[in-house]
Amino acid sequence: MQNQTSFIENGGVLSPQGFRGVAMRAGIKTSGDDLCLLWSLAPATCAAVFTQNEVKAAPVLVSGEHARNETTRAIICNSGNANCCTGETGARDAIAMCQFAAQFLGCDSREILVCSTGIIGHKLPMQNIESALQNMDSSTRCSSEQMARAVMTTDTVPKFCAASFQIDGQTVTIGGQAKGVGMIGPNMSALAPQTLHATMLAFLTTDAKVEKAFLQKALEEAVAPSFNSVTVDGDTSTNDSCILLANGASGIEIGNIEYSMFVECLEKVCVELARKIARDGEGATKLMQVEVSGAATESDAKQIAMTIANSPLVKTAIFGRDPNWGRLAMAAGRSGVRFNPAKMSISIGEVEVFRDGEPTTFDLAKAEAQMAGNDLTIRISLGESDAKWTAWTCDFSYEYVKINAEYHT
Amino acid sequence: MQNQTSFIENGGVLSPQGFRGVAMRAGIKTSGDDLCLLWSLAPATCAAVFTQNEVKAAPVLVSGEHARNETTRAIICNSGNANCCTGETGARDAIAMCQFAAQFLGCDSREILVCSTGIIGHKLPMQNIESALQNMDSSTRCSSEQMARAVMTTDTVPKFCAASFQIDGQTVTIGGQAKGVGMIGPNMSALAPQTLHATMLAFLTTDAKVEKAFLQKALEEAVAPSFNSVTVDGDTSTNDSCILLANGASGIEIGNIEYSMFVECLEKVCVELARKIARDGEGATKLMQVEVSGAATESDAKQIAMTIANSPLVKTAIFGRDPNWGRLAMAAGRSGVRFNPAKMSISIGEVEVFRDGEPTTFDLAKAEAQMAGNDLTIRISLGESDAKWTAWTCDFSYEYVKINAEYHT
Repeated sequence: MQNQTSFIENGGVLSPQGFRGVAMRAGIKTSGDDLCLLWSLAPATCAAVFTQNEVKAAPVLVSGEHARNETTRAIICNSGNANCCTGETGARDAIAMCQFAAQFLGCDSREILVCSTGIIGHKLPMQNIESALQNMDSSTRCSSEQMARAVMTTDTVPKFCAASFQIDGQTVTIGGQAKGVGMIGPNMSALAPQTLHATMLAFLTTDAKVEKAFLQKALEEAVAPSFNSVTVDGDTSTNDSCILLANGASGIEIGNIEYSMFVECLEKVCVELARKIARDGEGATKLMQVEVSGAATESDAKQIAMTIANSPLVKTAIFGRDPNWGRLAMAAGRSGVRFNPAKMSISIGEVEVFRDGEPTTFDLAKAEAQMAGNDLTIRISLGESDAKWTAWTCDFSYEYVKINAEYHT
Repeated sequence: MQNQTSFIENGGVLSPQGFRGVAMRAGIKTSGDDLCLLWSLAPATCAAVFTQNEVKAAPVLVSGEHARNETTRAIICNSGNANCCTGETGARDAIAMCQFAAQFLGCDSREILVCSTGIIGHKLPMQNIESALQNMDSSTRCSSEQMARAVMTTDTVPKFCAASFQIDGQTVTIGGQAKGVGMIGPNMSALAPQTLHATMLAFLTTDAKVEKAFLQKALEEAVAPSFNSVTVDGDTSTNDSCILLANGASGIEIGNIEYSMFVECLEKVCVELARKIARDGEGATKLMQVEVSGAATESDAKQIAMTIANSPLVKTAIFGRDPNWGRLAMAAGRSGVRFNPAKMSISIGEVEVFRDGEPTTFDLAKAEAQMAGNDLTIRISLGESDAKWTAWTCDFSYEYVKINAEYHT
């Protein structure tokens, strides 16, 4: 056995064995592909987490139900319309999308999961969707990139990756894609879905064979430090969904021994996608990584990291390349976590600006230089104990306001 | 008895009998008055609430302690420097400010409360402050407006008001002033202070005679639906403080019978100041009032109202005058409150856009027209029970980004 994850160049959801996908245009968005079908040649097991927003889009409710099925064959997804707040018609439309896909694949509609992303409150153009699926050429071989592009809304780049690891000389591959650069503050949990909106959608595939409950456990472990630790605006969408299909095509089964290797690889794929989301956040000029250490509990560390990552004052300071560490201290302090500020230290990139409750005499030009690039790491150390967490976000720019003030209903 | 609050034109903290104030320039800000002393001629009782941010500025810790004293004489306040994250020097400086004021008034320094607002992490220029206080001309009669101006940081207008009510033909007056247009997400609680930063400071004065514990109860009741229900960026400051002094100069004592009239008047003053804060929010083009009704509990209603008021996607849509009600539904749903979306209704101004879980067919032009003015009311009705709450915020504009990206350390 060898415990080493390696990324696959240009890999994505179609990298693992036994998966196929078709991306197509149904005319929901103003341009580009806006409908895709991702399927496994053989019945797969599925794990899924969904938004905990109390207002859940119809496809989230339908997929939450269908994810309980023992086997899953495919995910059908449209972009440009969230099918959310669409009442009973919306529920029927989400089910109909599953039926169209099931018909194509010759399976039960409960073996299909459905996702939508886009504007809230508009009914889906079902005729377009039906017609696009009927005309779908199943011999088309799409690339993973094309699949990732078909789900984009305000995203500026497709987000996909894949990685593999070896077990006794045999290869297990995990592929993934994600979309979403606004209305990004995922907080997804298990099959009982609860709420999200531009929505985070992530599809993951693997050719490992994994028993359903085990797969769900692995997904939840991988989502916590990745998708559930990324934020653009903190606005948890009505549609956030993360779905993992495992079809066993590699012939390798993940048991207790292989589990940690599998989760490690899965987490790396998810973290890579989460970072791509933050980097492409609406209007973003940089990716900000917030590392909190020395907390009393992991939960405390996460709460502080996410509060800093969501603070408008921190995010505008980062945009302005201003080493305004007072805002970092403020955000940590308002997180609701109890800690002793006299033991807190703060670094901006490699420059320590605050140590054990006192400002340091730091070189302002050097601190500003840390903020000039496309990547910035903020470190907060609490000195309470040894728990830590990392969150990802982006800065808050004029462009964010422009995108969201001008994206009209 | 007559239960009618009436506002006093150009009234402020100096409207009630027996209060004096001097505003002066100590050279902390780049221009304008930046230091003020507000005092009662006779010993007063005091009530106070402070930020719950875990990182508390030195003056918050000192005032929290001094507020326990049976009598209070004055509030000393500087703008331009928060005296926060300033370590032991900061603590000494906050105490020294109280001592300077006590010397001037000939009282104990524990009878002085101190407030600071401005940049975090810089030591106070104590020589400037001491020198300004030594040169203070006590015969100067400042106006309430001058007092309100002396505490401004990024505020564009001074915020002050006063109101009075009658008890058996005698008049009780309550005056107030507030500052703060950024780092505004107050969440203040009683004497054990906890966290806030541009910081919300509110000073309230009354010539009623009110026993200390009773006064604290009244203040907490009035702060909940006013200062603790306003937000600009949700970034609870390290310095937020709201202090109420009651000196009894009117000769009227507030007992059980008069209590509700007193609280009503106090709440009106606080709500008026809270609305002024939201309207002057950094970069704001409009005041947004969020009314949530039909909730299961008041706490649920408040949580939804505040989540909507803090949502970057809602606030940018308001700036763009876009009746994008899907974002309102999303924000309500991500608040953490359980409710049934099928019973939810949403109105933008006078236009109902969503009713009982279904979009209405509304006139887009009419909805957009509701958003054209300086004031906008959003109403969310949940259909769960009859609890309600109102929150205030402003829109999120290019100017907000400009102010906060360019406000350099």
